[in-house]
This record gives sequence, C-alpha cells and structure tokens, in this order.
Amino acid sequence: MSIDYQSLAVRGVQALSPYQPGKPIDELARELGLDPADIIKLASNENPLGPSEKALAAAREALSELCMYPDGNGFNLKSALARRFDVDMAQITLGNGSNDLLEIIARCFVDSDSEVVFSQYAFAVYPIVTQAIGAKGVSVPAKDWGHDLDAMAEAVTDRTRLIFIANPNNPTGTVHGQEAIESFLDRIPANIIVVLDEAYCEFFEGEDTPDGLKLLSRYPNLIVCRTFSKAWGLAALRVGYSFSSPEIADVLNRVRQPFNVDSIALAAATAVLGDEDYLRRSREVNAAGLKQLERAFEELGLDYIPSVGNFIAVDVGGQAMAVYQSLLEQGVIVRPVAGYGMPRHLRVSIGLPDENETFIKALAKALEAVGQGD
Amino acid sequence: MSIDYQSLAVRGVQALSPYQPGKPIDELARELGLDPADIIKLASNENPLGPSEKALAAAREALSELCMYPDGNGFNLKSALARRFDVDMAQITLGNGSNDLLEIIARCFVDSDSEVVFSQYAFAVYPIVTQAIGAKGVSVPAKDWGHDLDAMAEAVTDRTRLIFIANPNNPTGTVHGQEAIESFLDRIPANIIVVLDEAYCEFFEGEDTPDGLKLLSRYPNLIVCRTFSKAWGLAALRVGYSFSSPEIADVLNRVRQPFNVDSIALAAATAVLGDEDYLRRSREVNAAGLKQLERAFEELGLDYIPSVGNFIAVDVGGQAMAVYQSLLEQGVIVRPVAGYGMPRHLRVSIGLPDENETFIKALAKALEAVGQGD
Repeated sequence: MSIDYQSLAVRGVQALSPYQPGKPIDELARELGLDPADIIKLASNENPLGPSEKALAAAREALSELCMYPDGNGFNLKSALARRFDVDMAQITLGNGSNDLLEIIARCFVDSDSEVVFSQYAFAVYPIVTQAIGAKGVSVPAKDWGHDLDAMAEAVTDRTRLIFIANPNNPTGTVHGQEAIESFLDRIPANIIVVLDEAYCEFFEGEDTPDGLKLLSRYPNLIVCRTFSKAWGLAALRVGYSFSSPEIADVLNRVRQPFNVDSIALAAATAVLGDEDYLRRSREVNAAGLKQLERAFEELGLDYIPSVGNFIAVDVGGQAMAVYQSLLEQGVIVRPVAGYGMPRHLRVSIGLPDENETFIKALAKALEAVGQGD
Repeated sequence: MSIDYQSLAVRGVQALSPYQPGKPIDELARELGLDPADIIKLASNENPLGPSEKALAAAREALSELCMYPDGNGFNLKSALARRFDVDMAQITLGNGSNDLLEIIARCFVDSDSEVVFSQYAFAVYPIVTQAIGAKGVSVPAKDWGHDLDAMAEAVTDRTRLIFIANPNNPTGTVHGQEAIESFLDRIPANIIVVLDEAYCEFFEGEDTPDGLKLLSRYPNLIVCRTFSKAWGLAALRVGYSFSSPEIADVLNRVRQPFNVDSIALAAATAVLGDEDYLRRSREVNAAGLKQLERAFEELGLDYIPSVGNFIAVDVGGQAMAVYQSLLEQGVIVRPVAGYGMPRHLRVSIGLPDENETFIKALAKALEAVGQGD
C-alpha cells in the first residue's frame, strides 16, 4: 500500500504554503550565469551599510567557542538589552529572528479553535504561523494600505486569542502614531494578546514616533517584538527579541527551543547595541535613499506608498511580474508582492546611493521594454 | 481585573517544563566567583577538540555578509550533504540544531488527539515537543537502560502518529544494531512516522553499526535526524539535518522557519563536511576518553552504563546531587539526570585526557566528602 504522507500531516499544515523569501544573489547568479558581484539585491530589507565593526569583532572572538553550546539563557544579550531599553531582564524573550518569536507566541496562546486577527497587506508570517496551528486567520481589509485599527478592533470575537499589529508595516511602510496605538489597545480586552511588531521602528523618527515599550506597564496583554536584522544589520545571524510582562515571558520561554539563538549571534547582537554610531548611519543612509527613490518614481510618473521603513512599494502597473523579470535579467533583485494581494506593486529595499541609482536606471529600462500600461 | 496569563496559554504549554541545559561555564563562574578558565564543563556532550580549522575558516569568511539574510534553501550545505551521504537534495531538511527538526516533525504530524511513543530514559526533547502540542506522550519502560523495542512496538495504538528512537541513546549511551532496528520498523504500520535520532552515530564504529540511511528506501515512514553539534564540533552554531522521502521533506519544509539556520552556521557546516580528519580525531579522542573513564570508575568501584556515545552515565550512589554540587565547587560541571528518572547517576561527557583526569580526581574527592553509600 502506498501512503500519501502529505495527507498524514495535521490539518493546518496540509493547507500551508511556506514563506517565499527574496531571491538570494547566488541563486540568481546560478540561474542566469551571472557573476554574483554584478548583482544588486534590494529584495529583503537588508542593511546596505555592511556590518558594524563592533559586531564583527565580537563575532570573530566568539568563533573560538564553536564546539560549545550557546548560553541558553542569553545572559549577556539580555543584560545589554535591559540596560539600553530600561526594562527588566525577566521581560525579555530571545528569538531566532523575530519570526521565531511570532511563531512561539502563536503556539503559546492559539489553538485550532482560536481566531487570530491581522491586517490585509501585513507581514506574511502572521497568516503562516496561524495556519500552521490550524487556527482561523482573520485578515481585516486595510485602509490606505495601512492597518484599519477600528475595523481590527471590531473584528474581535470571543474566539480571538491574538492580534498582530506591524508598526511600521511591511510591505507597505505605513505607520500608526502612539495615540492611535493606545486608542486601539484601550478597545481590546486584556485576555487577548496583542503583538506590536516593531521590526522597522528604528527607521522612523517623526514627531509622533510610536514606541511599544512605553505602553507595556499599562497593557499587560502587550508583547513588543523587535529585531537585529534591519537597522542593526545582523540579518545573517537571526536575532529577535520581545518585551512583555515577566509572566508572559515565562510562558514564551517554555516553548522557546533552549538554544534557539546561537553563540555568534548572541555575541554580535550584544556588541552592536554598543554601536550607536552604526544605528545613526543606518538611519541617515536610509532617509537619503528613500528620498532618492521617491524623486525617481515621481520623475518616472509612478505612484508609490509613502514609507517610514527601509523599503518602498511602488506601483509599476499591470505588468509587475514582467518588470520584476526584466530587473532580474539586468541583475537587480527586488520583491514582487502579488502574494500580499498587491499585484501592481514591487517592494524595493533602500540601498546605497549607487545601488539605488542602478535600480532606477534598470527600472526605467524595464518599464520601457514592458510597457507601462494597465 | 488582573489576568493570569499562564492560564491563557494553550493546555499543553500550561503543563510544560522547559528543557534544562547543562550549566554554562560563565554562569558557574558568576555564581561561585571562579575564573572561567579554571572550570571544566563535561555536561553537554560537546566536542573537546575545539573547532575544525576548515569550519573556522569558512565561518570567518561568511562574517563579511552579516547584513544579508541566509540562503533559506541552504543550497550549498544540502549539496554537500547529498554528495557525502549519497542522497538526493530533496530528501534533506535543515534544522536549527536537530532539536528544531524534532519539533518540526512533531508539529507536522501530531495534534492534541495523537499519541507519541518514546522510551524511558530517552532524550528529554521528545516529551517536551509532545507536551507543547498537548499530545499524549507514551513513555515505554526501558530494558537494561536501553529502548525496549518490542514493548515500544506493542505500545502503538490507533492514535499513535509518531515514534522517537534515539540510537545511540542519550543519556544512557545504549545502542541497537541494524537488525534490531529493521525488525522494529517491520512491525510498525507505514502510516506512523518513525524518527531515528542518530545524533551520536558518528562515535560508534562496531561491527553491527546501525545506519538509518540504508533503511530509507525500504521504509517510507522513516526520518533520520543527525547533527553537527557532536562529532562535527559545531554546537555553538545550531545545525541539524534530516533525511527522509522527498514527500516528507516537503511537509517538514512548510513548517520550517525560512531562515532557521544562519549564514555562519551554513558556511561552517558545509566546510566541516570536507574535514574527515577532524571527524577521525573526534572519534579517536572519544574512544580513548571512554576507556579512561571506564577504568577510573572500575577503580573507584562505581557501576556505569556501557556507552557508545561521547558521554557515560555513572552510578554515584544515593547522594548524586551532593556529588554533583561538590564537583561544581571544584570547578567541574557534569550533568545530573534525576530529571530523566536516573537519580543515582551523573552523565559525564568525554573530555580531553587531562580534563578527564581532573574530573576523576574531583569525583574521588566528592565521593569521599559525601560518602558513597545508598
């Protein structure tokens, strides 16, 4: 008897489509026979600066201990985070990237009878971790490409266990100010966990900059997730962290794999927290690059979604996949977002000035080749 | 109203006790005010050789790409594994340590109505991943400290979805030969997933050395898990891998986090596979150290469980925790296994000759201080 092993998987997993990452440079090089050095990747919201020297030095030093398991409690990194953000170490949970934390949170508080609320156009990992459990994902229609917080509050039912808010949001770059987040939290019953995913928070420095940390003491159901993969430039190493009440952190740490963050990652993340200059430069390069791309889109007559992140979604018309392909052939990797229900847009990460310029020229060429019509 | 967030966790998580890792050197140093350089850790079955030079060189080189996400498909590492073990790349799933794979497998095939079969005294992660899902763990009494495979086959019910076999087993060091594993698999219905966890397989080179890879073509329900953390000396980096049918690998890869293995880990693991000399030395040092400890235990009049792993469980009498404490105070960290239902034993990882010697002297002193009685 031949057995269909897919049909033996639990219900949620059977219907699961895995996350589609940005295409790696090496993969495109293999496919098109290009030199990896000639390829520009603006597809995964990576930091274009290259790594912090302090992080590199700490990582190098940690290599001598490759044979030893990591510190499963992450003592040094938690101490550094607690100092910098003025929280208690017991409020921190470490993740193998913030993806790990989003999954751990769902597995702790959501079962197959639960509903999980998130926004249309929000980060793809929210529906994925929900689906893996077999829970019901409730995707609330967006407003002006951002979260419609009123509609999300109204979507809560007595089965809702968890709400994900991406602020700023990926892939649209929209953001809600502190007051809007507070009003939202005031409407949510305290027995529903609210995750504020602030993966991109370091790039936004407006007047009403939201900051989930300031809300933790008032909202015991709040978990704030952040990452070292973006502004801190450590995507290769996979380190995310969350702040919550010590009580919630204790629950999360039960499900967390004991060595989910590796030794090199712990060392580099601890060190980069002491490199404020790197963070400042990340912000400056990003702000300048955002302006550079906005200007170029305006000159090309393209609509874009104003972004506070390190990426921007641009409307390239009805042939977005053809534009994406043409860019690939020119050695420029960006991110199609049809999977997010945005078939006319491409998401472009902010690069260094010359990378942005190369992309802009390639985009103009692609649009000319494909035709810009609807 | 004050809310008890632990009571909001899903049922399985509420009853979950997290894995207790071996005590890290830095933690003991902090607690006892010792110099970390004066502490010997023989608690986590780590490779005492220090890292492979080839792995180190590859890790160093990969540091230049810290800002970029890892290759989520692990192309280079999967290629190297496929070549070395003569399997197809589509049969491989990569994990953040094999712990990650054990968890992914359970989440793919087990729900809260399922039963999962494992042995008494087997690896603690099996009951943990089972409990996190809220499934029923069926712990089958061991025979001579090893898996009672007949009893395990008889423990299968129509709710059984998954069976974990650790071969060799941790923490007891017992092993079943190829024939015994085959007879067992012949008795298990093909709709039940069997995991052969071969984390320690590289240390055993007897006549009847079991090898799950040779069984894959005949048993489509088989998953073989292995790790780079032990004989390959990369515990710090968290890389495990599994071999299965491509169909099962496809299911596992849906639940696997897209970047679960980081860039440094991928590079180092790929490189170490080309360092057969390192593997040979790992085996030699381990075989000699095992003999050294066995001789010492015999001289001290202590019973031990004959082991084929890189560790050995020794019966130190009724005061094992006091012996453990005395060893800690002497700067030697070993592993208490009372949590495994082995309150008279301590598990000792095989170190370098002088580390083993230091441990033996400290043990003699501890036994004298504590008294060796029952």
